[in-house]
Amino acid sequence: MLYLIGLGLTDETDVTVKGLELIKKVERVYLEAYTSILLVDTAKLEAYYGRPIIVADREMVESASDDILAGADSSDVAFLVVGDPFGATTHTDLILRARELQIPVQCVHNASILSAIGATGLQLYNFGQTVSMVFFTDTWKPSSFYDRLKENQQIGLHSLLLLDIKVKEQSLANLARGRKIYEPPRFMTVAQCASQMLETEEERGEGVCVPQSLAVGVARVGARDQKMAAGTLKQLSGMDLGAPLHSLVLLGKRTHYLERDFIREIAVEQDVFDTVWSERYEGKQ
Amino acid sequence: MLYLIGLGLTDETDVTVKGLELIKKVERVYLEAYTSILLVDTAKLEAYYGRPIIVADREMVESASDDILAGADSSDVAFLVVGDPFGATTHTDLILRARELQIPVQCVHNASILSAIGATGLQLYNFGQTVSMVFFTDTWKPSSFYDRLKENQQIGLHSLLLLDIKVKEQSLANLARGRKIYEPPRFMTVAQCASQMLETEEERGEGVCVPQSLAVGVARVGARDQKMAAGTLKQLSGMDLGAPLHSLVLLGKRTHYLERDFIREIAVEQDVFDTVWSERYEGKQ
Repeated sequence: MLYLIGLGLTDETDVTVKGLELIKKVERVYLEAYTSILLVDTAKLEAYYGRPIIVADREMVESASDDILAGADSSDVAFLVVGDPFGATTHTDLILRARELQIPVQCVHNASILSAIGATGLQLYNFGQTVSMVFFTDTWKPSSFYDRLKENQQIGLHSLLLLDIKVKEQSLANLARGRKIYEPPRFMTVAQCASQMLETEEERGEGVCVPQSLAVGVARVGARDQKMAAGTLKQLSGMDLGAPLHSLVLLGKRTHYLERDFIREIAVEQDVFDTVWSERYEGKQ
Repeated sequence: MLYLIGLGLTDETDVTVKGLELIKKVERVYLEAYTSILLVDTAKLEAYYGRPIIVADREMVESASDDILAGADSSDVAFLVVGDPFGATTHTDLILRARELQIPVQCVHNASILSAIGATGLQLYNFGQTVSMVFFTDTWKPSSFYDRLKENQQIGLHSLLLLDIKVKEQSLANLARGRKIYEPPRFMTVAQCASQMLETEEERGEGVCVPQSLAVGVARVGARDQKMAAGTLKQLSGMDLGAPLHSLVLLGKRTHYLERDFIREIAVEQDVFDTVWSERYEGKQ
């Protein structure tokens, strides 16, 4: 059996009891460590589980999935995923490969940012499609996220933006020379995301995410030191919400007054929030 | 402190380690038992936690929230919610009331159907807004869900429909006479949902959910006996997926071929699926 086990969002105790019991008894334990991270390191997980963990990077999952699946037809392998195993990334290839090899797959679900974002007080029913934001470079500034945001906005819905992380990336120079030297991990901040949105708005000019658009930035959702801030994109582009992981919600206009009450409490500046709210949001849809 | 603790989707072992430790040590434990249910009963939870549970019905949460919050400024109270505490229902009133009373609130997140639905193989990025489906009566057949589905369809997105549950409901006669006699609980099935969609389509006629529209019905997601079936709404309207809880996904047209590969495996009839797919979905957006 291949067990896909969600680890939740913050620390080693966010695993479910069901998940933990399985981790303790399977043959091998892999940790998917390139699409998201917990706020604790692998050594802490190993100590907590009392077991060694094999860290699976993108290369291993995509090119050596048969190594992960080896023997899983007759014994059990656990593949740990931060959040829910079917959250932002579905690991479709691994599961389809397991099916081809007649290996049964079972999933132990857990919290995902896609529902935990409800902790902002924004109603999950009012969210449209989830959108990814990648790190812009000097030469690569993909703006397809802008089209998705626009679609959500046109029907008044909020948009959750999941922010890029770069783990175990090589510099172009090292890549070219085949040197397996990796850059330090990078995690996009709310400020960086807001800035990239404003940069793209300047380019596209369709009014989807202007400096006065309201948004909610969140950091370390579910952790004791979770942080949230509601404000304009301009305000958020200058905010520091601390350590990763960050996400951002662009507000839609089909907003309930209870949602407003909730996020007003975390406004960067309540008077700015109130002004922008009444001018641009209240009763607009 | 008021702890909002998610219980996940299936049984007593879906609680997180963090959640379980809190449940064992707080002063009082409430279980929200009217918007969703676990697949095990309260007695089993009490035995597992080694603690009594106070079952909180809608009346208690909405009219007697101060009883729940009593003493939570100086001691700890746990409010257990099936799924994630901020899943489909946000218990906004309870949290705002706690804030008014200066009671700190902390949330222990868990799996929600909103992300676990990814187990169908459909990409969560391709879902639009989530939609509720209530039980129709002879005189009340609200069709606002149809407008939401239409909005999602127009941008090619999948729609997750969460299906009504009726727990501790009184019949009109008993309600009129003030008799606290409750009807047996009812849970909408995939078949009932598909039928209501088709009924509304006949009324509205805008082509949003026709008999040939593809959908995926799911039952008991995350449980060992989880069941999924992909087919036309007509097919699903005659399917029996067994015990609750059920949900349904109406397919959008912006669909990746890997999503097709996944759900084709669970097709009610693969040849029907293939025909409808190539006629109505393939390359349509």
